[in-house]
Amino acid sequence: MRMVDVISKKRDGKELTTEEIGFVVDGYTAGKIPDYQVSALAMAIFFQDMTDRERADLTMAMVNSGETIDLSAIEGIKVDKHSTGGVGDTTTLVLAPLVAALDVPVAKMSGRGLGHTGGTIDKLEAIEGFHVEITKEQFIDLVNRDKVAVIGQSGNLTPADKKLYALRDVTGTVNSIPLIASSIMSKKIAAGADAIVLDVKTGAGAFMKTDKDAENLAHAMVRIGNNVGRQTMAVISDMSQPLGFAIGNALEVQEAIDTLKGEGPEDLTELVLILGSQMVVLAKKAKDLDEARAMLKEVMANGKALAKFKDFLDNQGGDGSIVDDPSKLPQAQFKIDVPAKESGVVAEIVADEIGIAAMLLGAGRATKEDEIDLAVGIMLRKKVGDKVEAGEPLVTIYANKEDVKAVEAKIYENIRVSDKAEAPKLIHTVITE
Amino acid sequence: MRMVDVISKKRDGKELTTEEIGFVVDGYTAGKIPDYQVSALAMAIFFQDMTDRERADLTMAMVNSGETIDLSAIEGIKVDKHSTGGVGDTTTLVLAPLVAALDVPVAKMSGRGLGHTGGTIDKLEAIEGFHVEITKEQFIDLVNRDKVAVIGQSGNLTPADKKLYALRDVTGTVNSIPLIASSIMSKKIAAGADAIVLDVKTGAGAFMKTDKDAENLAHAMVRIGNNVGRQTMAVISDMSQPLGFAIGNALEVQEAIDTLKGEGPEDLTELVLILGSQMVVLAKKAKDLDEARAMLKEVMANGKALAKFKDFLDNQGGDGSIVDDPSKLPQAQFKIDVPAKESGVVAEIVADEIGIAAMLLGAGRATKEDEIDLAVGIMLRKKVGDKVEAGEPLVTIYANKEDVKAVEAKIYENIRVSDKAEAPKLIHTVITE
Repeated sequence: MRMVDVISKKRDGKELTTEEIGFVVDGYTAGKIPDYQVSALAMAIFFQDMTDRERADLTMAMVNSGETIDLSAIEGIKVDKHSTGGVGDTTTLVLAPLVAALDVPVAKMSGRGLGHTGGTIDKLEAIEGFHVEITKEQFIDLVNRDKVAVIGQSGNLTPADKKLYALRDVTGTVNSIPLIASSIMSKKIAAGADAIVLDVKTGAGAFMKTDKDAENLAHAMVRIGNNVGRQTMAVISDMSQPLGFAIGNALEVQEAIDTLKGEGPEDLTELVLILGSQMVVLAKKAKDLDEARAMLKEVMANGKALAKFKDFLDNQGGDGSIVDDPSKLPQAQFKIDVPAKESGVVAEIVADEIGIAAMLLGAGRATKEDEIDLAVGIMLRKKVGDKVEAGEPLVTIYANKEDVKAVEAKIYENIRVSDKAEAPKLIHTVITE
Repeated sequence: MRMVDVISKKRDGKELTTEEIGFVVDGYTAGKIPDYQVSALAMAIFFQDMTDRERADLTMAMVNSGETIDLSAIEGIKVDKHSTGGVGDTTTLVLAPLVAALDVPVAKMSGRGLGHTGGTIDKLEAIEGFHVEITKEQFIDLVNRDKVAVIGQSGNLTPADKKLYALRDVTGTVNSIPLIASSIMSKKIAAGADAIVLDVKTGAGAFMKTDKDAENLAHAMVRIGNNVGRQTMAVISDMSQPLGFAIGNALEVQEAIDTLKGEGPEDLTELVLILGSQMVVLAKKAKDLDEARAMLKEVMANGKALAKFKDFLDNQGGDGSIVDDPSKLPQAQFKIDVPAKESGVVAEIVADEIGIAAMLLGAGRATKEDEIDLAVGIMLRKKVGDKVEAGEPLVTIYANKEDVKAVEAKIYENIRVSDKAEAPKLIHTVITE
């Protein structure tokens, strides 16, 4: 088999065989097929797409390119959740203890990553002492005992995906549905998920800017999952404005605590109930979504969800007492309100730009080497559809520097007040096939 | 400027600026832009094409990536001819002395190359003593004195094209009109041509299998030439069957001699008259094509064309007496007729397969290291539209080995005799814009 023939075949719109896809992924991982042939193939895939069969084959070839995590020692159906990423996305921090409180096993492998704020691990590290450097045995024991644990990404998971993603990033081939979908799904499957709940964000703050693109990606991932024997569903959720109020690591932990108590922002609460219900049903802990939702609301109300979060933190060296005394979380030196210049209704809060404003404060990483300031960030005081009086704060900036003029300017540029506006619909679609 | 942005721009169907194209070609030549980005861009160009302006810019950027030949010391308008290549294509051997006999300066840089038979230099080397290792000064002096000389490719001409072509060859991006056209035109322009006559072949034995593809390529090259100030025209000519009768190096020299005397195959003679007339007009040695054609026929008839060929050979160390005594050319040991199995009319002679048959005999090179046997080849005894009786030879094989069963089999497979058939039209179109 010659790589140039595989490239030409895809270029001409033909379907690659399982053997051809295996040849490419194995050869690339082994360094036998050079970058310049794989980038040409990736561009041909950008234009010619892949069939469902090809996508499933590509995913499994990437899964099999490295180690896979065996979670069979954990009792029950392991349901993983994945978000395509947005601004102020605190869902994992809430969902993990919330569904664990209903005995759904949450064996989470998580990373740091680049972005407006840190990854889930960075957020958890806002809690003193918390760490994810636990052994695989400890990880499995914790999940079996308390139903929830988080471990850092380790080992040689999906090396083909890592190599391919780095290449796509510099060759204009990132934005291809079959390549995005197989990349995400290969990582989830290699990490041992039995079933997968996907939160595909849509809007200014999301990778997918339109509903159509988000739906295409969701369908692609759901079909891959179902075609390779992992029950998968997706929720398309709004990311035109940031989710919840908090954008920043410690601020989001605080918001997660509020939400676990049933006192969180309306949109974040609704989203964790929607995603959580799906997870509980997939884990066969409830017979339908309505029952699952009622169960989740009950553990929020009776304190079990928050207690689960406390146990989870204690189990991994963290100071669980922060759930009762959040002032123990890292605190910013300056809290600066940004007042509305005019009265009206908030019509737009451009999610990605507000995310960049948080990054300017030090809440996120632009490069791997950047240090995160866990205390800083932005608290929205109004959301789209809210009335506001001139002088009332639109947001509060949490900073460790006094001069936040650039951040303020960015906020004024990206929060628009108008005569009237309505809150955007949170859940756009649920996709199961 | 970032290469990934240039790739993404072309991927999205936008026109690249002159600066962007220069950035890519210069950066790639200098080794600053890696193969994997250029192959992704080439694939994006395959799908999104290039505008006439982009094609002209790409061509000139490749011309300027290395040395260029300055032919200004040669008097008159230097008209170069280029063929996209076919089977038994003896036109250059005939055209060079033919138009030189009318004082059109022919300063030819030529190569060896891979194919069914050798390149023009290989063919000329069938004449004992002939060589192209002359200095640039000798080359220019010879053209000024006798109007025709051939020099081997030397120096660092169009290094960007060499590098890009090698990359395209292994990344499925050869077959792209803007990339083919700019590659060919950059080489002609760097070699110093003032005006260019293109012979674009179409049919089984050509790179372009259909008239539509050949026309697209011809228009692309003609527009590039005219857009960068080199008057350019193209003839689309038939390559469904081999041109002339001879396929093989010494055999084609013999056929060139016959043709210069006005005794050559009808199709080859017609093609050199068509192409030659264009060259004579472009060189301003005749006022129109009819006058040019009459002048060419005259130098064929009065012996001046053949005498020019003799002088040309003598000038470059060759034995000019072969024009009077072609038996001095390398002779094959075996001449084997391949008789028709049935009577009828020759309906098809599949050019590329007959070319491969000649290569099996040793007439051409499959890899750069292969040695060519100058004596061997195939002489067609019938062409499409000719009547044939069972037992009459279809072709004669010229071989230096006795066992030519595989060659005979290939010939029978690829020459079809039928009830009736007509000779294909030789000149399909003339393209001037």
